Amino acid sequence: MIILKLGGSLITDKTKKFSIREVVLKRLANEIKAGTKDDLIIIHGGGSFGHPVADEYGLNEGFKGKDQLKGVALTRKAMDELNFHVIKALVTEDIPAVAVQPSSNIICKNGRIEEMNISIIKRYVGLGMVPVLYGDIVLDKEIGFSILSGDQIISYLPRYMKTKRVILCADVDGIYDKDPKKFKDAELIKEINRENSGGVMSKLEGTPGDVTGGIKGKILELINLADEDIKSIVINGLIPGRLEDSLMDKEVIGTVVKGG
Amino acid sequence: MIILKLGGSLITDKTKKFSIREVVLKRLANEIKAGTKDDLIIIHGGGSFGHPVADEYGLNEGFKGKDQLKGVALTRKAMDELNFHVIKALVTEDIPAVAVQPSSNIICKNGRIEEMNISIIKRYVGLGMVPVLYGDIVLDKEIGFSILSGDQIISYLPRYMKTKRVILCADVDGIYDKDPKKFKDAELIKEINRENSGGVMSKLEGTPGDVTGGIKGKILELINLADEDIKSIVINGLIPGRLEDSLMDKEVIGTVVKGG
Repeated sequence: MIILKLGGSLITDKTKKFSIREVVLKRLANEIKAGTKDDLIIIHGGGSFGHPVADEYGLNEGFKGKDQLKGVALTRKAMDELNFHVIKALVTEDIPAVAVQPSSNIICKNGRIEEMNISIIKRYVGLGMVPVLYGDIVLDKEIGFSILSGDQIISYLPRYMKTKRVILCADVDGIYDKDPKKFKDAELIKEINRENSGGVMSKLEGTPGDVTGGIKGKILELINLADEDIKSIVINGLIPGRLEDSLMDKEVIGTVVKGG
Repeated sequence: MIILKLGGSLITDKTKKFSIREVVLKRLANEIKAGTKDDLIIIHGGGSFGHPVADEYGLNEGFKGKDQLKGVALTRKAMDELNFHVIKALVTEDIPAVAVQPSSNIICKNGRIEEMNISIIKRYVGLGMVPVLYGDIVLDKEIGFSILSGDQIISYLPRYMKTKRVILCADVDGIYDKDPKKFKDAELIKEINRENSGGVMSKLEGTPGDVTGGIKGKILELINLADEDIKSIVINGLIPGRLEDSLMDKEVIGTVVKGG
Protein backbone atom coordinates (compact mmCIF):
# COMPACT_ATOMS: atom_id res chain seq x y z
CA MET A 1 0.00 0.00 0.00
CA ILE A 2 1.23 3.46 -0.93
CA ILE A 3 -0.39 6.54 0.55
CA LEU A 4 -0.03 9.56 -1.70
CA LYS A 5 -0.67 13.14 -0.71
CA LEU A 6 -1.33 15.78 -3.33
CA GLY A 7 -0.64 19.09 -1.58
CA GLY A 8 -3.19 21.88 -1.71
CA SER A 9 -0.51 24.33 -2.92
CA LEU A 10 0.31 21.95 -5.76
CA ILE A 11 -3.13 21.28 -7.22
CA THR A 12 -4.58 24.76 -6.60
CA ASP A 13 -3.25 28.27 -7.03
CA LYS A 14 -3.10 29.46 -3.41
CA THR A 15 -2.91 33.12 -4.46
CA LYS A 16 -6.34 32.96 -6.15
CA LYS A 17 -9.48 31.74 -4.35
CA PHE A 18 -11.08 28.61 -5.84
CA SER A 19 -8.57 28.12 -8.64
CA ILE A 20 -7.46 24.69 -9.82
CA ARG A 21 -4.15 24.05 -11.53
CA GLU A 22 -5.84 21.98 -14.22
CA VAL A 23 -2.69 21.23 -16.25
CA VAL A 24 -0.70 20.12 -13.19
CA LEU A 25 -3.60 17.97 -11.98
CA LYS A 26 -3.99 16.30 -15.37
CA ARG A 27 -0.27 15.51 -15.54
CA LEU A 28 -0.21 14.16 -11.98
CA ALA A 29 -3.18 11.88 -12.78
CA ASN A 30 -1.25 10.68 -15.81
CA GLU A 31 1.85 9.96 -13.71
CA ILE A 32 -0.26 8.12 -11.13
CA LYS A 33 -1.72 5.95 -13.88
CA ALA A 34 1.74 5.24 -15.31
CA GLY A 35 3.61 4.68 -12.03
CA THR A 36 1.18 2.78 -9.82
CA LYS A 37 2.08 -0.86 -9.13
CA ASP A 38 0.72 -1.14 -5.57
CA ASP A 39 -2.58 -0.54 -3.85
CA LEU A 40 -3.03 3.19 -3.53
CA ILE A 41 -4.85 5.69 -1.34
CA ILE A 42 -4.80 9.37 -2.31
CA ILE A 43 -5.26 12.30 0.08
CA HIS A 44 -5.38 15.89 -1.09
CA GLY A 45 -5.16 19.20 0.68
CA GLY A 46 -7.52 22.17 0.63
CA GLY A 47 -5.35 24.84 -1.01
CA SER A 48 -7.24 27.88 -2.23
CA PHE A 49 -10.59 26.11 -1.69
CA GLY A 50 -10.70 25.15 1.97
CA HIS A 51 -8.46 27.65 3.70
CA PRO A 52 -9.88 31.08 2.74
CA VAL A 53 -13.46 30.36 3.89
CA ALA A 54 -12.30 28.52 7.02
CA ASP A 55 -10.14 31.54 7.91
CA GLU A 56 -12.94 34.03 7.26
CA TYR A 57 -15.34 32.31 9.68
CA GLY A 58 -12.70 31.45 12.32
CA LEU A 59 -13.48 27.77 11.96
CA ASN A 60 -10.14 26.58 13.34
CA GLU A 61 -11.33 27.59 16.81
CA GLY A 62 -14.33 25.22 16.76
CA PHE A 63 -17.99 26.07 17.26
CA LYS A 64 -18.51 29.49 18.82
CA GLY A 65 -21.93 30.46 17.45
CA LYS A 66 -24.61 29.90 14.85
CA ASP A 67 -23.14 32.53 12.50
CA GLN A 68 -20.30 30.09 11.77
CA LEU A 69 -22.64 27.46 10.33
CA LYS A 70 -22.72 29.22 6.99
CA GLY A 71 -18.92 29.06 7.02
CA VAL A 72 -19.01 25.33 7.75
CA ALA A 73 -21.47 24.82 4.88
CA LEU A 74 -19.35 26.94 2.51
CA THR A 75 -16.08 25.23 3.50
CA ARG A 76 -17.60 21.77 3.03
CA LYS A 77 -19.03 22.81 -0.34
CA ALA A 78 -15.65 24.21 -1.43
CA MET A 79 -13.84 21.00 -0.44
CA ASP A 80 -16.38 18.87 -2.30
CA GLU A 81 -15.86 21.04 -5.37
CA LEU A 82 -12.07 20.64 -5.24
CA ASN A 83 -12.42 16.91 -4.60
CA PHE A 84 -14.73 16.63 -7.59
CA HIS A 85 -12.03 18.12 -9.83
CA VAL A 86 -9.45 15.66 -8.48
CA ILE A 87 -11.77 12.66 -8.95
CA LYS A 88 -12.62 13.83 -12.46
CA ALA A 89 -8.93 14.12 -13.41
CA LEU A 90 -8.22 10.62 -12.05
CA VAL A 91 -11.27 8.94 -13.58
CA THR A 92 -10.43 10.58 -16.95
CA GLU A 93 -7.14 8.64 -16.79
CA ASP A 94 -9.14 5.45 -16.14
CA ILE A 95 -8.05 5.27 -12.51
CA PRO A 96 -10.99 3.74 -10.53
CA ALA A 97 -10.91 6.59 -8.03
CA VAL A 98 -13.67 6.96 -5.48
CA ALA A 99 -14.21 9.86 -3.09
CA VAL A 100 -14.36 9.12 0.62
CA GLN A 101 -15.75 12.26 2.23
CA PRO A 102 -13.88 12.60 5.54
CA SER A 103 -16.70 14.55 7.22
CA SER A 104 -19.10 11.61 6.61
CA ASN A 105 -16.64 9.05 7.87
CA ILE A 106 -14.59 10.61 10.67
CA ILE A 107 -15.36 12.24 14.02
CA CYS A 108 -12.61 14.17 15.83
CA LYS A 109 -12.03 15.02 19.47
CA ASN A 110 -10.21 18.27 20.14
CA GLY A 111 -8.95 18.31 16.59
CA ARG A 112 -7.58 14.75 16.51
CA ILE A 113 -9.27 11.79 14.76
CA GLU A 114 -11.35 9.89 17.33
CA GLU A 115 -13.46 7.59 15.14
CA MET A 116 -13.00 6.61 11.52
CA ASN A 117 -14.74 3.95 9.44
CA ILE A 118 -11.57 2.37 8.05
CA SER A 119 -13.46 -0.69 6.78
CA ILE A 120 -14.96 1.40 3.96
CA ILE A 121 -11.47 2.31 2.74
CA LYS A 122 -10.23 -1.27 3.07
CA ARG A 123 -13.21 -2.61 1.14
CA TYR A 124 -12.66 -0.17 -1.74
CA VAL A 125 -8.99 -1.17 -1.91
CA GLY A 126 -10.03 -4.84 -1.78
CA LEU A 127 -12.23 -4.32 -4.86
CA GLY A 128 -9.30 -2.72 -6.70
CA MET A 129 -10.37 0.90 -6.33
CA VAL A 130 -8.42 4.00 -5.25
CA PRO A 131 -10.04 5.83 -2.31
CA VAL A 132 -9.50 9.59 -2.35
CA LEU A 133 -9.73 11.50 0.94
CA TYR A 134 -8.91 15.13 1.70
CA GLY A 135 -8.50 17.80 4.30
CA ASP A 136 -12.00 18.66 5.50
CA ILE A 137 -14.03 20.30 8.21
CA VAL A 138 -15.39 17.49 10.37
CA LEU A 139 -17.55 17.04 13.46
CA ASP A 140 -15.74 17.17 16.78
CA LYS A 141 -16.98 15.61 20.04
CA GLU A 142 -15.48 18.36 22.18
CA ILE A 143 -15.49 21.56 20.17
CA GLY A 144 -18.38 20.99 17.72
CA PHE A 145 -16.32 20.85 14.58
CA SER A 146 -12.67 21.03 13.69
CA ILE A 147 -10.44 21.34 10.68
CA LEU A 148 -8.84 18.04 9.84
CA SER A 149 -5.70 18.31 7.73
CA GLY A 150 -4.91 15.83 5.00
CA ASP A 151 -1.59 15.30 6.81
CA GLN A 152 -3.34 14.06 9.93
CA ILE A 153 -5.31 11.52 7.87
CA ILE A 154 -1.99 10.38 6.40
CA SER A 155 -0.43 9.84 9.80
CA TYR A 156 -3.56 8.00 11.03
CA LEU A 157 -4.22 5.52 8.19
CA PRO A 158 -1.00 3.43 8.28
CA ARG A 159 -1.81 2.20 11.80
CA TYR A 160 -4.73 0.30 10.31
CA MET A 161 -3.33 -0.88 6.99
CA LYS A 162 0.08 -2.23 6.05
CA THR A 163 1.75 0.77 4.41
CA LYS A 164 4.92 0.50 2.37
CA ARG A 165 5.51 4.16 1.76
CA VAL A 166 4.02 7.63 2.07
CA ILE A 167 4.67 10.08 -0.76
CA LEU A 168 3.88 13.76 -0.28
CA CYS A 169 3.75 15.86 -3.42
CA ALA A 170 4.44 19.52 -2.68
CA ASP A 171 5.14 22.55 -4.91
CA VAL A 172 8.81 22.71 -3.79
CA ASP A 173 11.58 20.10 -3.79
CA GLY A 174 11.02 19.01 -0.19
CA ILE A 175 11.40 20.43 3.32
CA TYR A 176 13.81 23.37 3.61
CA ASP A 177 15.54 24.96 6.60
CA LYS A 178 13.59 28.15 5.81
CA ASP A 179 10.81 29.15 3.39
CA PRO A 180 12.32 28.56 -0.09
CA LYS A 181 9.76 30.87 -1.69
CA LYS A 182 11.11 33.79 0.38
CA PHE A 183 14.77 33.01 1.00
CA LYS A 184 17.18 32.30 -1.85
CA ASP A 185 19.68 30.67 0.51
CA ALA A 186 17.12 28.18 1.87
CA GLU A 187 18.64 24.71 1.92
CA LEU A 188 16.82 21.47 1.17
CA ILE A 189 16.93 19.04 4.09
CA LYS A 190 17.59 15.66 2.50
CA GLU A 191 16.70 13.57 5.51
CA ILE A 192 14.82 14.07 8.76
CA ASN A 193 15.30 11.36 11.36
CA ARG A 194 15.04 10.95 15.13
CA GLU A 195 18.44 12.55 15.64
CA ASN A 196 17.99 15.77 13.69
CA SER A 197 14.20 16.26 13.91
CA GLY A 198 14.41 18.43 17.05
CA GLY A 199 16.92 20.74 15.40
CA VAL A 200 14.86 21.01 12.20
CA MET A 201 11.71 21.88 14.12
CA SER A 202 13.39 24.56 16.23
CA LYS A 203 14.92 26.16 13.12
CA LEU A 204 11.40 26.46 11.72
CA GLU A 205 10.06 28.30 14.80
CA GLY A 206 8.40 31.48 13.62
CA THR A 207 7.46 30.07 10.22
CA PRO A 208 3.90 31.20 9.54
CA GLY A 209 1.31 28.40 9.79
CA ASP A 210 -2.07 28.06 8.13
CA VAL A 211 -5.37 26.77 9.59
CA THR A 212 -3.97 23.23 9.40
CA GLY A 213 -0.62 23.91 11.03
CA GLY A 214 1.57 24.64 7.99
CA ILE A 215 4.92 22.99 7.43
CA LYS A 216 5.60 22.33 11.11
CA GLY A 217 2.26 20.51 11.43
CA LYS A 218 3.22 18.44 8.40
CA ILE A 219 6.64 17.50 9.81
CA LEU A 220 5.09 16.50 13.14
CA GLU A 221 2.68 14.12 11.39
CA LEU A 222 5.54 12.60 9.37
CA ILE A 223 7.68 12.15 12.50
CA ASN A 224 4.68 10.34 14.06
CA LEU A 225 4.81 7.99 11.08
CA ALA A 226 8.56 7.54 11.27
CA ASP A 227 8.11 6.50 14.91
CA GLU A 228 6.03 3.62 13.57
CA ASP A 229 8.75 2.81 11.03
CA ILE A 230 6.87 4.11 8.01
CA LYS A 231 9.13 6.04 5.66
CA SER A 232 7.76 9.10 3.94
CA ILE A 233 9.20 11.29 1.23
CA VAL A 234 8.30 14.87 0.33
CA ILE A 235 8.83 15.53 -3.39
CA ASN A 236 8.13 18.27 -5.92
CA GLY A 237 5.01 17.50 -7.95
CA LEU A 238 5.64 20.47 -10.25
CA ILE A 239 8.65 18.73 -11.84
CA PRO A 240 7.35 16.22 -14.41
CA GLY A 241 8.32 12.63 -13.75
CA ARG A 242 9.17 12.85 -10.05
CA LEU A 243 5.83 11.46 -8.87
CA GLU A 244 5.89 8.64 -11.39
CA ASP A 245 9.49 7.74 -10.45
CA SER A 246 8.68 7.89 -6.76
CA LEU A 247 5.63 5.63 -7.19
CA MET A 248 7.93 3.16 -8.98
CA ASP A 249 10.34 3.33 -6.03
CA LYS A 250 13.10 5.06 -8.00
CA GLU A 251 15.30 7.55 -6.19
CA VAL A 252 14.17 11.18 -6.62
CA ILE A 253 15.14 14.57 -5.16
CA GLY A 254 13.21 15.25 -1.97
CA THR A 255 13.18 15.02 1.82
CA VAL A 256 13.01 11.57 3.35
CA VAL A 257 11.50 11.37 6.84
CA LYS A 258 12.34 8.14 8.60
CA GLY A 259 12.96 6.61 11.98
CA GLY A 260 16.38 5.68 13.36
CA MET B 1 -37.68 16.33 12.66
CA ILE B 2 -38.91 16.36 9.08
CA ILE B 3 -37.29 14.15 6.47
CA LEU B 4 -37.66 15.55 2.99
CA LYS B 5 -37.03 13.69 -0.24
CA LEU B 6 -36.39 15.56 -3.47
CA GLY B 7 -37.06 13.05 -6.23
CA GLY B 8 -34.51 12.48 -8.96
CA SER B 9 -37.19 13.03 -11.63
CA LEU B 10 -38.02 16.36 -10.03
CA ILE B 11 -34.57 17.95 -9.78
CA THR B 12 -33.14 16.48 -12.98
CA ASP B 13 -34.47 15.99 -16.48
CA LYS B 14 -34.63 12.19 -16.73
CA THR B 15 -34.82 12.30 -20.51
CA LYS B 16 -31.38 13.97 -20.80
CA LYS B 17 -28.23 12.54 -19.17
CA PHE B 18 -26.61 14.78 -16.53
CA SER B 19 -29.15 17.63 -16.76
CA ILE B 20 -30.25 19.61 -13.73
CA ARG B 21 -33.57 21.42 -13.52
CA GLU B 22 -31.87 24.56 -12.20
CA VAL B 23 -35.03 26.70 -11.97
CA VAL B 24 -37.01 24.03 -10.13
CA LEU B 25 -34.12 23.40 -7.75
CA LYS B 26 -33.73 27.09 -6.97
CA ARG B 27 -37.47 27.46 -6.26
CA LEU B 28 -37.49 24.35 -4.06
CA ALA B 29 -34.52 25.70 -2.06
CA ASN B 30 -36.46 28.93 -1.65
CA GLU B 31 -39.57 27.08 -0.41
CA ILE B 32 -37.44 25.04 2.01
CA LYS B 33 -35.98 28.26 3.41
CA ALA B 34 -39.46 29.81 3.75
CA GLY B 35 -41.31 26.78 5.11
CA THR B 36 -38.88 25.12 7.51
CA LYS B 37 -39.78 25.36 11.19
CA ASP B 38 -38.43 21.99 12.37
CA ASP B 39 -35.11 20.18 12.21
CA LEU B 40 -34.67 18.94 8.68
CA ILE B 41 -32.84 16.20 6.80
CA ILE B 42 -32.90 16.20 3.00
CA ILE B 43 -32.43 13.15 0.77
CA HIS B 44 -32.32 13.39 -3.01
CA GLY B 45 -32.55 10.83 -5.78
CA GLY B 46 -30.18 10.15 -8.66
CA GLY B 47 -32.37 11.04 -11.65
CA SER B 48 -30.47 11.46 -14.90
CA PHE B 49 -27.12 11.40 -13.05
CA GLY B 50 -27.00 8.09 -11.21
CA HIS B 51 -29.27 5.78 -13.21
CA PRO B 52 -27.83 5.84 -16.76
CA VAL B 53 -24.25 4.92 -15.77
CA ALA B 54 -25.43 2.35 -13.19
CA ASP B 55 -27.57 0.73 -15.89
CA GLU B 56 -24.79 0.74 -18.46
CA TYR B 57 -22.40 -1.17 -16.18
CA GLY B 58 -25.03 -3.50 -14.69
CA LEU B 59 -24.22 -2.22 -11.21
CA ASN B 60 -27.56 -3.26 -9.70
CA GLU B 61 -26.38 -6.87 -9.79
CA GLY B 62 -23.38 -6.24 -7.52
CA PHE B 63 -19.71 -6.93 -8.24
CA LYS B 64 -19.20 -9.30 -11.18
CA GLY B 65 -15.78 -8.22 -12.48
CA LYS B 66 -13.09 -5.56 -12.56
CA ASP B 67 -14.57 -3.96 -15.69
CA GLN B 68 -17.41 -2.63 -13.53
CA LEU B 69 -15.05 -0.57 -11.34
CA LYS B 70 -14.99 2.22 -13.89
CA GLY B 71 -18.79 2.22 -13.72
CA VAL B 72 -18.69 2.46 -9.92
CA ALA B 73 -16.23 5.36 -10.16
CA LEU B 74 -18.36 7.12 -12.80
CA THR B 75 -21.62 6.60 -10.89
CA ARG B 76 -20.10 7.91 -7.67
CA LYS B 77 -18.67 10.91 -9.53
CA ALA B 78 -22.05 11.61 -11.15
CA MET B 79 -23.86 11.46 -7.79
CA ASP B 80 -21.32 13.81 -6.20
CA GLU B 81 -21.85 16.23 -9.07
CA LEU B 82 -25.63 16.20 -8.65
CA ASN B 83 -25.28 16.53 -4.88
CA PHE B 84 -22.97 19.49 -5.37
CA HIS B 85 -25.69 21.29 -7.37
CA VAL B 86 -28.26 20.59 -4.64
CA ILE B 87 -25.93 21.81 -1.86
CA LYS B 88 -25.10 24.92 -3.88
CA ALA B 89 -28.79 25.76 -4.39
CA LEU B 90 -29.48 25.31 -0.66
CA VAL B 91 -26.44 27.24 0.57
CA THR B 92 -27.28 30.07 -1.86
CA GLU B 93 -30.57 30.41 0.05
CA ASP B 94 -28.58 30.59 3.31
CA ILE B 95 -29.65 27.12 4.41
CA PRO B 96 -26.71 25.58 6.38
CA ALA B 97 -26.80 22.45 4.23
CA VAL B 98 -24.04 19.89 4.52
CA ALA B 99 -23.49 16.84 2.31
CA VAL B 100 -23.33 13.43 3.96
CA GLN B 101 -21.95 11.09 1.32
CA PRO B 102 -23.81 7.79 1.82
CA SER B 103 -20.98 5.68 0.37
CA SER B 104 -18.59 7.01 3.05
CA ASN B 105 -21.05 6.44 5.85
CA ILE B 106 -23.10 3.33 5.05
CA ILE B 107 -22.33 -0.33 4.31
CA CYS B 108 -25.08 -2.56 2.91
CA LYS B 109 -25.64 -6.30 3.00
CA ASN B 110 -27.48 -7.77 0.02
CA GLY B 111 -28.74 -4.33 -0.90
CA ARG B 112 -30.10 -3.37 2.54
CA ILE B 113 -28.42 -0.94 4.96
CA GLU B 114 -26.34 -2.96 7.43
CA GLU B 115 -24.22 -0.23 9.11
CA MET B 116 -24.69 3.52 9.13
CA ASN B 117 -22.95 6.20 11.19
CA ILE B 118 -26.11 7.94 12.38
CA SER B 119 -24.23 9.95 15.00
CA ILE B 120 -22.72 12.15 12.27
CA ILE B 121 -26.21 13.09 11.09
CA LYS B 122 -27.46 13.68 14.64
CA ARG B 123 -24.47 15.89 15.43
CA TYR B 124 -25.02 18.06 12.36
CA VAL B 125 -28.70 18.46 13.29
CA GLY B 126 -27.66 19.27 16.86
CA LEU B 127 -25.47 22.12 15.59
CA GLY B 128 -28.40 23.50 13.58
CA MET B 129 -27.33 22.23 10.17
CA VAL B 130 -29.28 20.41 7.45
CA PRO B 131 -27.67 17.09 6.41
CA VAL B 132 -28.21 16.20 2.76
CA LEU B 133 -27.98 12.53 1.74
CA TYR B 134 -28.79 10.88 -1.57
CA GLY B 135 -29.21 7.69 -3.50
CA ASP B 136 -25.71 6.31 -4.03
CA ILE B 137 -23.67 3.28 -4.94
CA VAL B 138 -22.30 1.88 -1.68
CA LEU B 139 -20.14 -0.98 -0.47
CA ASP B 140 -21.96 -4.24 0.24
CA LYS B 141 -20.73 -6.99 2.57
CA GLU B 142 -22.21 -9.76 0.45
CA ILE B 143 -22.20 -8.61 -3.16
CA GLY B 144 -19.30 -6.10 -3.23
CA PHE B 145 -21.38 -3.00 -3.88
CA SER B 146 -25.04 -2.22 -4.27
CA ILE B 147 -27.25 0.62 -5.33
CA LEU B 148 -28.84 2.27 -2.34
CA SER B 149 -31.98 4.22 -3.12
CA GLY B 150 -32.78 7.49 -1.40
CA ASP B 151 -36.09 5.88 -0.44
CA GLN B 152 -34.33 3.16 1.56
CA ILE B 153 -32.38 5.82 3.49
CA ILE B 154 -35.69 7.52 4.22
CA SER B 155 -37.25 4.36 5.60
CA TYR B 156 -34.12 3.64 7.68
CA LEU B 157 -33.45 6.99 9.38
CA PRO B 158 -36.66 7.43 11.42
CA ARG B 159 -35.85 4.34 13.50
CA TYR B 160 -32.94 6.26 14.97
CA MET B 161 -34.34 9.76 15.27
CA LYS B 162 -37.73 11.02 16.33
CA THR B 163 -39.42 11.85 13.03
CA LYS B 164 -42.60 13.88 12.78
CA ARG B 165 -43.20 13.56 9.09
CA VAL B 166 -41.71 12.39 5.82
CA ILE B 167 -42.36 14.51 2.72
CA LEU B 168 -41.56 13.13 -0.71
CA CYS B 169 -41.45 15.64 -3.54
CA ALA B 170 -42.15 14.00 -6.90
CA ASP B 171 -42.85 15.39 -10.39
CA VAL B 172 -46.51 14.26 -10.26
CA ASP B 173 -49.29 14.91 -7.73
CA GLY B 174 -48.69 11.72 -5.75
CA ILE B 175 -49.07 7.95 -6.25
CA TYR B 176 -51.48 6.93 -9.02
CA ASP B 177 -53.18 3.62 -9.80
CA LYS B 178 -51.22 3.59 -13.08
CA ASP B 179 -48.48 5.71 -14.66
CA PRO B 180 -50.03 9.22 -14.96
CA LYS B 181 -47.47 10.18 -17.62
CA LYS B 182 -48.81 7.44 -19.91
CA PHE B 183 -52.46 7.02 -19.00
CA LYS B 184 -54.88 9.94 -19.03
CA ASP B 185 -57.37 8.05 -16.84
CA ALA B 186 -54.81 7.37 -14.10
CA GLU B 187 -56.33 8.19 -10.72
CA LEU B 188 -54.53 9.75 -7.77
CA ILE B 189 -54.62 7.53 -4.68
CA LYS B 190 -55.28 9.92 -1.80
CA GLU B 191 -54.37 7.52 0.98
CA ILE B 192 -52.48 4.26 1.28
CA ASN B 193 -52.94 2.43 4.56
CA ARG B 194 -52.66 -1.11 5.90
CA GLU B 195 -56.06 -2.01 4.51
CA ASN B 196 -55.63 -0.94 0.89
CA SER B 197 -51.83 -1.27 0.46
CA GLY B 198 -52.03 -4.86 -0.85
CA GLY B 199 -54.57 -3.84 -3.49
CA VAL B 200 -52.51 -0.80 -4.55
CA MET B 201 -49.35 -2.88 -4.91
CA SER B 202 -51.04 -5.62 -6.96
CA LYS B 203 -52.56 -3.02 -9.30
CA LEU B 204 -49.04 -1.73 -9.94
CA GLU B 205 -47.68 -5.15 -10.93
CA GLY B 206 -46.03 -4.84 -14.31
CA THR B 207 -45.14 -1.18 -13.84
CA PRO B 208 -41.59 -0.77 -15.11
CA GLY B 209 -39.02 -0.30 -12.36
CA ASP B 210 -35.63 1.40 -12.45
CA VAL B 211 -32.35 0.31 -10.84
CA THR B 212 -33.72 1.39 -7.45
CA GLY B 213 -37.08 -0.38 -7.69
CA GLY B 214 -39.26 2.36 -9.16
CA ILE B 215 -42.62 3.33 -7.71
CA LYS B 216 -43.27 -0.06 -6.13
CA GLY B 217 -39.96 0.09 -4.29
CA LYS B 218 -40.90 3.56 -3.07
CA ILE B 219 -44.32 2.42 -1.78
CA LEU B 220 -42.77 -0.56 0.01
CA GLU B 221 -40.35 1.75 1.86
CA LEU B 222 -43.22 4.07 2.84
CA ILE B 223 -45.32 1.16 4.07
CA ASN B 224 -42.33 0.10 6.22
CA LEU B 225 -42.45 3.57 7.72
CA ALA B 226 -46.22 3.48 8.21
CA ASP B 227 -45.76 0.25 10.14
CA GLU B 228 -43.69 2.27 12.59
CA ASP B 229 -46.41 4.94 12.74
CA ILE B 230 -44.56 7.53 10.72
CA LYS B 231 -46.81 9.32 8.27
CA SER B 232 -45.46 10.20 4.87
CA ILE B 233 -46.88 12.27 2.06
CA VAL B 234 -45.99 12.24 -1.63
CA ILE B 235 -46.53 15.67 -3.19
CA ASN B 236 -45.84 17.43 -6.49
CA GLY B 237 -42.73 19.59 -6.25
CA LEU B 238 -43.34 21.08 -9.70
CA ILE B 239 -46.35 23.05 -8.42
CA PRO B 240 -45.06 26.18 -6.64
CA GLY B 241 -46.03 26.43 -2.99
CA ARG B 242 -46.86 22.81 -2.27
CA LEU B 243 -43.53 22.00 -0.64
CA GLU B 244 -43.60 25.17 1.45
CA ASP B 245 -47.19 24.47 2.56
CA SER B 246 -46.37 20.87 3.34
CA LEU B 247 -43.32 21.83 5.41
CA MET B 248 -45.61 24.19 7.37
CA ASP B 249 -48.01 21.28 7.95
CA LYS B 250 -50.77 22.76 5.77
CA GLU B 251 -52.97 20.38 3.83
CA VAL B 252 -51.87 19.88 0.22
CA ILE B 253 -52.85 17.63 -2.70
CA GLY B 254 -50.92 14.36 -2.55
CA THR B 255 -50.86 10.76 -1.39
CA VAL B 256 -50.69 10.13 2.34
CA VAL B 257 -49.18 6.81 3.41
CA LYS B 258 -50.00 5.92 6.98
CA GLY B 259 -50.62 3.04 9.33
CA GLY B 260 -54.04 1.93 10.58
